[in-house]
Formats: sequence, structure tokens, C-alpha cells
Amino acid sequence: MPEVVLAPGKSPSEAARLVVAMAQRQGQGLISRMSRSHAAAVKSAARASGMSIVAYSTSARVMRNDFSPEPMAGRIGILTAGTSDVAVADEARMVAESCGHEVRMEADLGVAGLHRFVAPLSAILDWDADVLIVAAGMDGVLPGVVAGLVDLPVIGLPVSVGYGAGGAGQAALLTMLQSCSTGLVVVNIDNGVGAGAAAVLIASRAGEAGSRRSRPARSRRASPGPAR
Amino acid sequence: MPEVVLAPGKSPSEAARLVVAMAQRQGQGLISRMSRSHAAAVKSAARASGMSIVAYSTSARVMRNDFSPEPMAGRIGILTAGTSDVAVADEARMVAESCGHEVRMEADLGVAGLHRFVAPLSAILDWDADVLIVAAGMDGVLPGVVAGLVDLPVIGLPVSVGYGAGGAGQAALLTMLQSCSTGLVVVNIDNGVGAGAAAVLIASRAGEAGSRRSRPARSRRASPGPAR
Amino acid sequence: MPEVVLAPGKSPSEAARLVVAMAQRQGQGLISRMSRSHAAAVKSAARASGMSIVAYSTSARVMRNDFSPEPMAGRIGILTAGTSDVAVADEARMVAESCGHEVRMEADLGVAGLHRFVAPLSAILDWDADVLIVAAGMDGVLPGVVAGLVDLPVIGLPVSVGYGAGGAGQAALLTMLQSCSTGLVVVNIDNGVGAGAAAVLIASRAGEAGSRRSRPARSRRASPGPAR
Amino acid sequence: MPEVVLAPGKSPSEAARLVVAMAQRQGQGLISRMSRSHAAAVKSAARASGMSIVAYSTSARVMRNDFSPEPMAGRIGILTAGTSDVAVADEARMVAESCGHEVRMEADLGVAGLHRFVAPLSAILDWDADVLIVAAGMDGVLPGVVAGLVDLPVIGLPVSVGYGAGGAGQAALLTMLQSCSTGLVVVNIDNGVGAGAAAVLIASRAGEAGSRRSRPARSRRASPGPAR
Amino acid sequence: MPEVVLAPGKSPSEAARLVVAMAQRQGQGLISRMSRSHAAAVKSAARASGMSIVAYSTSARVMRNDFSPEPMAGRIGILTAGTSDVAVADEARMVAESCGHEVRMEADLGVAGLHRFVAPLSAILDWDADVLIVAAGMDGVLPGVVAGLVDLPVIGLPVSVGYGAGGAGQAALLTMLQSCSTGLVVVNIDNGVGAGAAAVLIASRAGEAGSRRSRPARSRRASPGPAR
Amino acid sequence: MPEVVLAPGKSPSEAARLVVAMAQRQGQGLISRMSRSHAAAVKSAARASGMSIVAYSTSARVMRNDFSPEPMAGRIGILTAGTSDVAVADEARMVAESCGHEVRMEADLGVAGLHRFVAPLSAILDWDADVLIVAAGMDGVLPGVVAGLVDLPVIGLPVSVGYGAGGAGQAALLTMLQSCSTGLVVVNIDNGVGAGAAAVLIASRAGEAGSRRSRPARSRRASPGPAR
Amino acid sequence: MPEVVLAPGKSPSEAARLVVAMAQRQGQGLISRMSRSHAAAVKSAARASGMSIVAYSTSARVMRNDFSPEPMAGRIGILTAGTSDVAVADEARMVAESCGHEVRMEADLGVAGLHRFVAPLSAILDWDADVLIVAAGMDGVLPGVVAGLVDLPVIGLPVSVGYGAGGAGQAALLTMLQSCSTGLVVVNIDNGVGAGAAAVLIASRAGEAGSRRSRPARSRRASPGPAR
Amino acid sequence: MPEVVLAPGKSPSEAARLVVAMAQRQGQGLISRMSRSHAAAVKSAARASGMSIVAYSTSARVMRNDFSPEPMAGRIGILTAGTSDVAVADEARMVAESCGHEVRMEADLGVAGLHRFVAPLSAILDWDADVLIVAAGMDGVLPGVVAGLVDLPVIGLPVSVGYGAGGAGQAALLTMLQSCSTGLVVVNIDNGVGAGAAAVLIASRAGEAGSRRSRPARSRRASPGPAR
Repeated sequence: MPEVVLAPGKSPSEAARLVVAMAQRQGQGLISRMSRSHAAAVKSAARASGMSIVAYSTSARVMRNDFSPEPMAGRIGILTAGTSDVAVADEARMVAESCGHEVRMEADLGVAGLHRFVAPLSAILDWDADVLIVAAGMDGVLPGVVAGLVDLPVIGLPVSVGYGAGGAGQAALLTMLQSCSTGLVVVNIDNGVGAGAAAVLIASRAGEAGSRRSRPARSRRASPGPAR
Repeated sequence: MPEVVLAPGKSPSEAARLVVAMAQRQGQGLISRMSRSHAAAVKSAARASGMSIVAYSTSARVMRNDFSPEPMAGRIGILTAGTSDVAVADEARMVAESCGHEVRMEADLGVAGLHRFVAPLSAILDWDADVLIVAAGMDGVLPGVVAGLVDLPVIGLPVSVGYGAGGAGQAALLTMLQSCSTGLVVVNIDNGVGAGAAAVLIASRAGEAGSRRSRPARSRRASPGPAR
Repeated sequence: MPEVVLAPGKSPSEAARLVVAMAQRQGQGLISRMSRSHAAAVKSAARASGMSIVAYSTSARVMRNDFSPEPMAGRIGILTAGTSDVAVADEARMVAESCGHEVRMEADLGVAGLHRFVAPLSAILDWDADVLIVAAGMDGVLPGVVAGLVDLPVIGLPVSVGYGAGGAGQAALLTMLQSCSTGLVVVNIDNGVGAGAAAVLIASRAGEAGSRRSRPARSRRASPGPAR
Repeated sequence: MPEVVLAPGKSPSEAARLVVAMAQRQGQGLISRMSRSHAAAVKSAARASGMSIVAYSTSARVMRNDFSPEPMAGRIGILTAGTSDVAVADEARMVAESCGHEVRMEADLGVAGLHRFVAPLSAILDWDADVLIVAAGMDGVLPGVVAGLVDLPVIGLPVSVGYGAGGAGQAALLTMLQSCSTGLVVVNIDNGVGAGAAAVLIASRAGEAGSRRSRPARSRRASPGPAR
Repeated sequence: MPEVVLAPGKSPSEAARLVVAMAQRQGQGLISRMSRSHAAAVKSAARASGMSIVAYSTSARVMRNDFSPEPMAGRIGILTAGTSDVAVADEARMVAESCGHEVRMEADLGVAGLHRFVAPLSAILDWDADVLIVAAGMDGVLPGVVAGLVDLPVIGLPVSVGYGAGGAGQAALLTMLQSCSTGLVVVNIDNGVGAGAAAVLIASRAGEAGSRRSRPARSRRASPGPAR
Repeated sequence: MPEVVLAPGKSPSEAARLVVAMAQRQGQGLISRMSRSHAAAVKSAARASGMSIVAYSTSARVMRNDFSPEPMAGRIGILTAGTSDVAVADEARMVAESCGHEVRMEADLGVAGLHRFVAPLSAILDWDADVLIVAAGMDGVLPGVVAGLVDLPVIGLPVSVGYGAGGAGQAALLTMLQSCSTGLVVVNIDNGVGAGAAAVLIASRAGEAGSRRSRPARSRRASPGPAR
Repeated sequence: MPEVVLAPGKSPSEAARLVVAMAQRQGQGLISRMSRSHAAAVKSAARASGMSIVAYSTSARVMRNDFSPEPMAGRIGILTAGTSDVAVADEARMVAESCGHEVRMEADLGVAGLHRFVAPLSAILDWDADVLIVAAGMDGVLPGVVAGLVDLPVIGLPVSVGYGAGGAGQAALLTMLQSCSTGLVVVNIDNGVGAGAAAVLIASRAGEAGSRRSRPARSRRASPGPAR
Repeated sequence: MPEVVLAPGKSPSEAARLVVAMAQRQGQGLISRMSRSHAAAVKSAARASGMSIVAYSTSARVMRNDFSPEPMAGRIGILTAGTSDVAVADEARMVAESCGHEVRMEADLGVAGLHRFVAPLSAILDWDADVLIVAAGMDGVLPGVVAGLVDLPVIGLPVSVGYGAGGAGQAALLTMLQSCSTGLVVVNIDNGVGAGAAAVLIASRAGEAGSRRSRPARSRRASPGPAR
């Protein structure tokens, strides 16, 4: 499991130096929670070292050109309740892709209108995901609703989006902890990296089995954060 | 709006005396949160005074035999997420019926399986409810989901059912406060009486209008807590 | 019910673009919680597109010139305890007016001196409001006092004004949740949009009935935030 | 200022022994928060020692027959929002009377209907109180409303009556702390003894002055908890 | 996934009736959080119906004699920090065994002395577990320490054992949420059933793969709570 | 009791305009919680209008030159635990002086070394104060210690100085609420204005009495914040 | 460091059996938080096995007659703010005495009246204590005051005595955490055993040094809880 | 014990002036929680006065050239869980070194991989430390694990590093308070100065004894923050 550099508390140049050094040493370097100046510094440091970057909202993966993660057989589905949950969900996507698993993400499923999430959820199930990560802020309802509908392990990822009482993610966290939907587990508020790492461990073993089942062919769908 | 005697902190005989006196004075007397001994004392005091009782889980309405509330034109729908939410929801039903409104209650709609709540919700909408009360403990998800599907005012009623972090109703309350579903308002945890009173005020004006629309005939469906 | 663009987290130009696009598509676009630079960007984008703006403190409604909401028969009264509660209350006013309801707002009623709120409250009742929204920060006392005096549904709107223990709106929220005044329901701290939406749903049915009663003629009183 | 025996955590006989010994030594002994068995034990121990008792809800004052507190010139008004606040308010009354001050208590003023508290409040002001104690549970609104209407120091006494969020007295405490009414200070939840002691200190100096003003004659009104 | 009857709030006879009916209908019936009288009632009702019981601390599984769960290939390891965490961990064991998975539980690993948990942890890893559940109260340290040492998904199960600040399981929950050990996810305090259900879903797919690897033969080790 | 303009949320020029207008109308205008730019704007606006200013840390009193408050006979002592509590204590001093009472303030008494506070406390008692305000942040210990030593009403004023758990004034507030020292009442965190107003009301009546006792001559000691 | 049996959650006979077995094995067995029936069971089990008991409020030490702890050179002073803090402080005394250190305890020093704690504190310092444990509930002020006066390490031991806001020991804990007195460290609420154990470790090394200084002769003062 | 100037709330020049004046008066001056501009101002003021500085992350010790603290015999070990805990731990190191004790600090021991902390912990024990300070943010696990392995007093120092629920140091504080490892005491979040002062008091007496044991020679190891 690759380490992830946490940008806050580090200067842009220091953060960029760390992640590029990690990529030189291990093939890839991961960084999360970047400000715009962090992102710019990482981009320019990677270019200066002849490396490529895969961008994931406020996170990024810097890779040596001779490196690509060993492909794994697991499939990890990621859903978000709103567009403001995508940056945190993207941390999970980055970790999962850095470990060689296939990832499919569907953003902004909402809950207020049930019709909005039926189609993307079905698509992810048809694709034969091994585990789902469901990110949600505000009332944090989506992970429980999804876990109530599927037979897969679901990792609830509360996001610090909201306002007033419980608005820094606590309401979302408590909702997920209180859910009685089968198979729902949670990580801390905004812990996209942790959700991704847990999903990787779950998918790794499951994938071995899955790869022997008759799975649909590997998805061609471009991931949301293409290489810059 | 009739007053409601709060049983806790009063001896069974004192509580029974108060509610019967209220019924003698005003035609009906309401009491909530009774223990079994409160309920027994109220029942025997009512009988001794020749009055009838309508039972609502842990609440009750004592009535003089010459009394019935003036019929109002409003229709109040009450939904509960689980069976353990019924006693609190029944406080709301008691208040609404004591004001002469028509009430229809559907209990145990769940949320984990969406199929469970579609039919009863449709039935309540076909019946042309003016306002909905939705009671839920645990993760308190149901009121937001319902409010996202209907065009009616919805009163979220959090119930102190759950365990662990947020389990005394706080998770349910926060979930409802954070919901972005249109038209959802809330009352305090376990405040069935308050939810009922608010619904009565909303339904009273709406009912006048509704009664001039072509509504389905008044429901014959026996209310869940028949007179003992 | 029109959607509302939430300004925080969006750049001024992005927010302006979104709300103007919404207005072009649907006739009107709503935006809330604008900083001064958001407000300036929205104003200039609206002008560039030949649209008009109705300003509501930190919120605004952008309208195509050929658009006006279909008039509804409901009447929504809005009261605030202090002047610092007006910006949040104005979110509710915006939503209500965007739905075609008539709105009347009385700001800064206080509570310390009872005399200050008797006259404006009477005026709103004489005007035959269908529902009241009462916004209050600090100790959040006003909504309960009002609900104790009137026979209307009252939506308590806690505002994050205060200091020290409970000063971010929690004291106001708890006060409203604990109130035993009949018919008081609440929304989350600073959720003016939610209060407005709930009031619209309540007023919509009530209005039909109200419009058949002998109501005083439609108020000519200019709304506080006139079109710029 | 006399000490007060706190009954909880002591056996009825131990508590009774302590308070009677205190009365033998100092003329009077005070005890608070008695259960029924504490009260019975105190009553019988006092009788056995030939002492008299003044009962104050769950508190009591045991006095040697040759003892009465030196009369002081202060006047302390006590108001309660509901009947369930009386036991805590009575702790304050006991302390004040044990120090020789004149006390006048008006219970159950409510707030929902303003008319209910105007008359008793006026009576207390006409009586020329030096300081007011105002006890309230639930939303704790009364102390702030009273402090907004009078020119006297007001001690807010939050009471642990309520339910759900903030229902153990926290909502009442926060409401009082957030109140912007002039001259309102608070003590901890259920701290009737502390409120009484503070009122005694405030009244002691004020009383000297008051006794030289033309005050109405000393009230004859029997105090609510007469000697048994 | 079998439903679980929650004993609290139900009378012993009612709880017994429900779980036996469930067993008659589905082959097995599960019940959790039994008091001693619940346990006695369930035992006698099961015997009266000719059913067998598997006891799990305060939980139990009632089975028709013609029923045994279809064997699954998954292996679920359960660890507890102390003996007082066993009852909650046993809920998870019951759910896992009711779904046909193989379970191995090691109790009282402690943390204060590292030597205490090395051997049982190694044994569970050698046994080739697919997922671990680690239950801990007090400071809740064990799940993070274990997750830092193994490459498996770990479900942290906080238990309401402790005292003082954070002692009702909150400290344990927060510790697990804050852990930076890879692959740790959590469920709510005391939610053994939820932990078990999530482990079942994780193990189900993994087990298929595992069963094709060369696993050590199925353990003969008697489970801690043998059939009565 | 004069109103106090609260600077935060107002622009420097707006705040300056308000307080000067208040002074023109009523003789004096008070303002609290000024930033440096607020203070500069107030100073220049007062000068431009030919008014004088009395500075109190982050608060100020603007006075018409023909105005001085009617002298009152009360004496208000103010103590602070540390130098960082002075700005909040100075709000209370401003209010008290604006009402014509005599004020004496002793700052930085500490508690760690008892010797530090004995002398200033004795001086204040010799001066015959009618009421004490004691401001303290961090552990908030000083008010309780003082109240345990004197026979005067003491108003505890918690200050938001501290760090870590309870460091925003909550520890100080709780300490004061839990104190069992006789006669201690509290106001909200940082509510210097409220503490001053309550002290004024307490001192007003007491002062009448005090002025007839043989008090030491009116102190000549310059107040800490002299007119600029 | 001897283990301590925690009585709650164990039946009296089970607890008695455990502690006697521990004494048989190791010479002494310790038990804490006993109810009266636990204490009775332990007493009778010890007698039946011919062992002696040293009682410490709700704790006890059972000893084989051939056993006494190896004497250590450390001296541990224990102070309590009130009599209700003694049971928790006695847990610390038990642990310290079981390790062979000399202990001196002074109970009920209060804080309201400074005179009450000067003499016992001086006595403990003259006795040349190596470390102090100071137990306090309510506002928890004593440990900080003591630490401000002495040059010794002080362990603050918050006790769950109090009421209302912060009354379960949280106010005491926060006060100690916020104290700026030099050398004050804390343990969790009611954790007398932990305080005792930490004091033993501190005293063990210090004692070696102390024993070479000219210490006053070993105290003869009977410890408060003599052998029964 | 030297006083420490707290930089926040003071201007850089004011802070620099205070700490240099303290050094001139007492030989050394300490300052903590400096921003970069504070640090620059202190450095230049010290140079201007011909003094030397020892830098400790965000803290510093300014010394007259003719001054060095009297050497003490105590040995204080400091461990940190991560690199982000070093600044707070360095406050403790500064205090300890300013008192003349020998300090040895090992940073970034982690916990996830046990192997990482065995070697540095052994080294500190071999060095014969008298007391350990263990700083940790996030889940705060390290102090309890260390205290469970050693026979020394351990001071847990929670650090405000983390995110989401409990992320401002509360999780770390609660974990340490709930730990059942022997001999663990705590200070408030980020209170490095307090941890250092307590360690000094513990080490002072212990050191006398230690210096008579056969200790390894005084460490030559350069301290992490060398004189600039």
C-alpha cells in the first residue's frame, strides 16, 4: 500500500519535493489535500523530473514513466451523494488505482430523488464490483440506502460538507454509524485515503475469486481525472 | 388545542385524577408517556366516572360520553420507520384525532428495502393528506427520503431509539436537520405531541381548501388503537 | 420549488455563470450566501445578459425579463428578533417570493421589551398570514413566544449569532426544540432556504382556502430588497 | 450563611442525624434533595428531638424551638416557569428564609401565554423586591423575559426538566447564558441553594437601603410550605 | 443474512416467541442483548418446540433440528482486547456462524503487554483468515495496532466498557476513527451484529478465492459458546 | 442602562457613526470588541464631532463634552486572574462607569501563588465594594476562591483564554458553575457587558445603603483607561 | 504493581473468589468499586480462607497472613477536597500501600476557606512527601491550588461528584487540564487506581534518594481504613 | 522553574522585548508558539543584545552569555509518535533543558509498525531515563503502549494533529485518559510546557538517587535544536 503525502502543513515546494522523491524511489508518489499552490508546485516539479501526473481533484499521483502498478483483479465502485463529495472520494480512487485495482466512480447520485441513483447503482452492480465506497456529506443518507439494496460490503465515507448543527461531517458520520443496513462500515470524516486502503484490502482477495467468475470485460470508461 | 398531561413524575392516581378532571371539564382529557401502572389507573378512573378511553400505545384520550371533537376537514398522514417508533408517533395521532382531523398511520416502512415504503406512501398520497409526520429513530433517514419524494410539508419526528454514538435520538435529529429535502421541518426528539399539534395547525387551513377539492371519501379504516 | 445556488466554495464568476444559466433555462435563478465579490459578479453577469436582479441581503434572484412567477394565494409572514438575523430570514423571503407567494417581513422585534413586538405581530395577523417564519439568534426566544400567542404554524429559524457557550446558533436551536409552545417546528441553524421552502408548501394548500376567505387586499408594501 | 446537608448518597437515618445535630448546634439545620424516605426519617428524628420542621418540597429546615433567624430587611422574589420547577426554587426559598429575609414566591408563570405572568410579576414589583430568582426548565425562556422587563438583578435558575436534545437543563442554561436582557446572571442547573445564597448576599445590603424607603408592610401571605 | 431479534424493550416471553417463530419459519432464529430472564425464556421456549440453542454470551441462535446453515468458504477471525468485550464480539460470531462461515475467536489479547497478543494473532493469520473483527473498549487501541501489522481488512468494534471521560465507548470509537493504520474500518459502539454482517459480506467473495488456495484444514477447535 | 454598540460585523466607519450618533442623542455612546481599525475610526469620528473618549482596552465610551453620568453611590470591584482577561473585564468597567458608579479594578491576581491576590483583594474589601466581578480564563478558578473568602455577591466572568480541551472558555465557565462557594453567579463567556450591567443593578440599591454607612472617601485612584 | 479486580459487572461471590485466589497466589489481592454486597462477600470469603482484610472505603486489600509487601522508601501524600472524594482517593491509597510505600492522607481540605487546607498541606510537606495525589470533584480547583504552592509533582484526580453542567466529573477534569500551575498532571475521572500506580512509579525512584536525606521518622499515624 | 512567554496574542517586537528582558534579569528567557515573524524578531533582538539562542521548533530559549543552568542529575526521555508532534514535544525539551536536566528525544516512533519503536525505546531505557514524555496526536496510542512496556512514570502529551471526529487532539486525549497502562498520567492537548515542568519535578528527586546508581556516562548526542 503506497504512502500518501499530506499536503497541509507543508510548503508547496517541500510537498512537491517529497512526492517526487517518493516516485523516484518507488515508481509512484501520492499526495492529498493540496491547495492550488501545492498542485502547481507538484506539477512543475514532476515535469522537471520527467514524470507524469494523474490528477484526482485535490490529490495527485506522480509516476515515473517506466512505472505502472501491477494490475489486480479487484473492482472497486465509488459513489458520491453530491458533487462536493468528489474531492474526498477521489482520494479513495487514487489509492485504489495506485494499487492496480479497477475503479469506477459515479458522482452526484443524490437521495432526494430516488430515480437519480438507480441507474448508476445498477451499472456498478452489473460491472460486478467487489466492494463499494459511498461518500456523503450533509445528512449522510446515501451509504445506508445503498447498503440496504446491495449484497456487497459498503464503506461509508462521511464528508465535512454541511452547516449548522452537525454540519462539519458529524451528522453524516452519526447517520452511517446508526444505520441498520447490512454490511455498512465507516471511516472517519474526510478520510478518503483510509476508505480507499480498506477497499483495496477487501478487493484484493475478492478479486482472485472474481477473476475466475465470468466478469464483464475490463471497463474502457475513462477515469474522471485523466493524466494531464 | 387540548392540553396533554405528562405522566412521568406524577403518581398513577394523581395522573388519573388530572386527566379525568380535564375530561369532565372539557369533554376530553389527554395523557402521554404512561407506564403500565399509569395506564391501569387511568383506565379504572375513567370507568369509575363512566367515561370511555381511546388508547394510543403509551398515551390515552379519556372522553365524556356526550363528547366528540368537532370534525375538521384536514387529513394528517403519519409514517414510522420502525415498530419501535409507534409509541411516539401515536402521541401525534392522539393530538390530531382529539382536534377532529382525520388521521391515517402507516407503521414500520423501513428504508433498507425501498420496496417496503412505496406502497404505503402512495396510499397516503392518494388519500390526499395535507401534511405528513414521519417518525424515525436510529439513523433517522426516512423523513428526508419521504420529503424528497412528495410535495407536502413533512414534519420529521426523531425518536430516541438506537445505541452507541448518537443513539439517544441525536443522530436521527441531526440527520433530519441536515437533510436537503424540500419542506422538511423537525421537532425535538420524542416530541410526538408537538409534531401532532403542528400538523393540526397546518392541516386546519389546508383542510378548508382540501374539502372543496374532490377528495376520496372519508376513510373507514379503523385507527390502530381502538377504544378499550 | 426552484433550486438555489450555494455561493461558498464557488468562485464569483463560476457562481454568476451558474445562476444566470439557471435563469435563462427556467426564468429565474436563485443564489444564497454571497460574499461581496459574489454579489458583484452576479450583478454584472445578469446585466450583461439583460436580466434583472432582486436583492435579498446576501442572496439574490436573477430573472429573465419575460418571467414572473405564477402568483399563488398563500401569505407568508417573516419575523426576525434582531437586525443580524435579516440575512438568513431574507433567504426564506427569496424562496417564498420566487414561488409566487405574498411575503411580509418585520425585522428586529426583539424580546427584551415586549412592547416592541406586539404591533408588528398584530399587523401580520391582521394581514391573515397562513404561516410564520421567525428567525432568531442568541437565546432564540422569539419563535416560542410568538408560537405561544398565535394559532398559526410557526417555523423557528435559528441563526448563528451569539458568543460563548452555545453562541454559534446551538442555544437558539435548543431553545426552539425545547419550547412547549404549540405548533412550533424548526429547521437547522441558518437554513433560511429550508424554512422558506417549508413555508411555501404549507402556504400553498392553505392559500387556496385563504383566497376564498375575505382577505384584506394584497399588500402594496414594497419588499425590503427592491430590484436594483 | 447556614450549611445545607445534601441528602443523596446518605442513608435516611444518617441524613436525619446530621441535620438534627446541626439544628441542635446552630439553631437550625437545612437539608435538600430528599427522597420520601429521607423526608420521613428527618420528620421523625426532628419530632423525637422536640424540634419543628418547615417543609420546602424536597428540602426542609429543622429548627430548635427557641430559635428563629434574625430578621433581615431584604426582600427576595422567586418566580417559576412551571410547577415542576418548584422543588428547585424551594431550595432557594429555604436558604433565603433561613437567613431572615422576606421571600415571596409565584409559581407556574409560563411564557406561552403572556397574560399568565403579568399579574404575579407586577405584584412582586409592587412589593418592592430587591432581587428576583427565576427558575425555568425546558427552553428556559422566562428569566430573560423577566430581566428584560424589570430594573432589578435577576438570577436565572435553570432546572433539569425537559426531554430530547438539551433536555437535562442544558437548553435552559444556554438560553439564559445567551440572553441579552440586562442584569441576568445564572447559577448551575438545579442549584437552588446557590441561587438562594447569592440572592441573600445581594438583598442584605440592598435591604438596609430598602428598609429606609417607604416599603409596603411586611407581607402576611403564608409561605407555600408551612411548618408541619 | 438472517434477521436478529433485539431483546431489550421486549418481554422475555414475547422475545422467546419471536425467535422461535423465526426459527420455525427460516430454520434458525437469532436474538441479541438478552438479560438472564430473556435467556431463560428463550431456552425453555426452544426446548418446548424441540429446537436446539447455540449460546453466545448474551446472544443466542435457536435452530430447527433439521437445519444447518449452508457451509461457506469464508474464514472470519475475531479478537477481543479484554474479557468484557466478549459479549459484543459474540454477537458478531453468532451472525458469522449463522451464515455458514468458519469463525475463530481469540479473547483478551490486551495491549499493555505486547507479548500477550502476538501468539493468538499469528495463529489466526496462519489459519488464513479473510477478515478480522477486533473488539475493544476503554482506549480502543487494539484494532489499530492489529491493522498496522496485518494485510487484511480489519473491522474495529468499539465496546462501551470504560469510565470517566469517553468511557461509554466514545474514546474507543474515536481512537479507531483516528487510527492511521491501513485498512481499518469501524462500526458503531457495541454493534457486534453489524460487524458480523459486514465480515460475512467481505468473507463471502474472498472465501471463494481462499477455498482454491491451499488452506489449512477446517479447524476442529470448539467454538467458545457450545450448544446447551 | 446605556446600549452598547457591538463592533464585529460592522465596518469601522459604520460603527463609528453609530456610537457618535448615540453620544449626540444621549450624552454618551458605548462600543465594545473593537479591532484596531474600529478604534481608530471611532477616535477620529469623536474628535471630528468635538467629543471626548474614555478608552477601555478594546471598548470605548464617547461622550459629549457637556455630559457626565449622574453619580451613583454604588461601588463595584473588578478583579482579573491574568492580564489577558483585562479586555473583557474592561467592558464591565465601562458599563459601570457609564452608569455613574465608582469602579476599582485590580488586574492579574493569579491563583498559583496565593500571596499575589491577598493584598489587592483586601484593598477592595477595605474600600467597601458592594459587589465584585471576577474575570478569569484558563481554569477559571479565581472567582470561586474569592467568593469563598468574602461576604459579597460575586459575578464570575469566564474569558475565552486557554487551549486544548475546554480552552475556549468552557472550562472556566464550568468551573464557576460547579463552584460551591457561596454567592457566586455567572454570565456567559466573554460577556463583560452583561457582567457590568448586572453589577450596576446590584450596586444601585446597595449603594443607597452604603452611602449612609461610614465609607472611606471616594477613591482618587486614576482608572486604568484614562481619557485620551 | 498488583492487579486490581474491578467489582462492577461481577457477582459478589465471583468477585470474592477472584480476589481471594489472587491473594493465595501472590500474597495479596486488591478489589475496587465494591457495592455493600461485594464487600460482605469478600469479607466472608477472606475469613473462610483465614486471610486478613484492609478496608479502603469501597475498595479492599485481602492478604495472606504470611504476607506483607516489601517496604519501599517512597512517601505518597493524598489530599481530598471533600469527604465525597475519599472513596476514589482510597483506591490510590490502597495501591500505594500494597506496593510498600508509606502513605499519608488528609481528607476534606476544601477550598472555599483557605485556612482549612494550609495546616494539613504543611504537615504533608514537613513529612517530606515525594509526590502528591489531590482528589477533587465539583469544580476541581484544589489540585491546581496545591500545585501552585508546592515544588512536588502533583497528580490531579478528578472525581464524579457534582451536578448540572459538567457535574459528572468533566468540570473537574477540564479545570485540572486548564490549570497553569507547575507540575500538575491528571488521570481520568474516578481513576484512583491509576493515580496510585503513577504515584508509586514516581515515588519509587525518588524514595531511594529521599531515604538518604534526613527524613522525619516513619509516621505512626493510623491509616484511615484499619484492618477489620 | 522558569516562566515561558506565550507568543500568540503578542506582536513580534513585544514578544521579543519580553523574552530578552527576562533573559537579562534571570539569565535565560523562554518563549513558545512563535510564528515565523516572532522567531525572526526574537533572533534579531537577542543578537542585538549579544545573547545566544537555543531553538526548539516553534519555541526558543534566549540566554545571557554568562549564564548556564545549574546541572541537575535527572534524565528525561521524550518520544513522539510522528514528526508533526515534534514542535509540541520540543516545548517540553526546552523547559527540561532550561532546568539543567539531561534530555534525550526520539521522534517519529509510529505505532502501526511495532518494529519502528522498539529500538529507540530500548535506547532510552538503557540510558536510564527517570521519566518519559510521550507526545502523540491522531489516535494517541503511543503513550499507552509505552507505559505498558516500561516501569517508569509516563506523561502522555496529546497533540492537536488529526482530522474529522476528535481530530483536534480530543481523540488523543481520551485515548490516554482511558488507557489502563500502569503509570500513565496526562496533560492538556498541546501543553508541552506543562509536560516538561512536571517531568522536571519528577526527575529532580529521582535524579539524586539515579546519580548514585551506576548510570551510563552523560550522553554526548547533540540535541535536535542546536544553538543558532
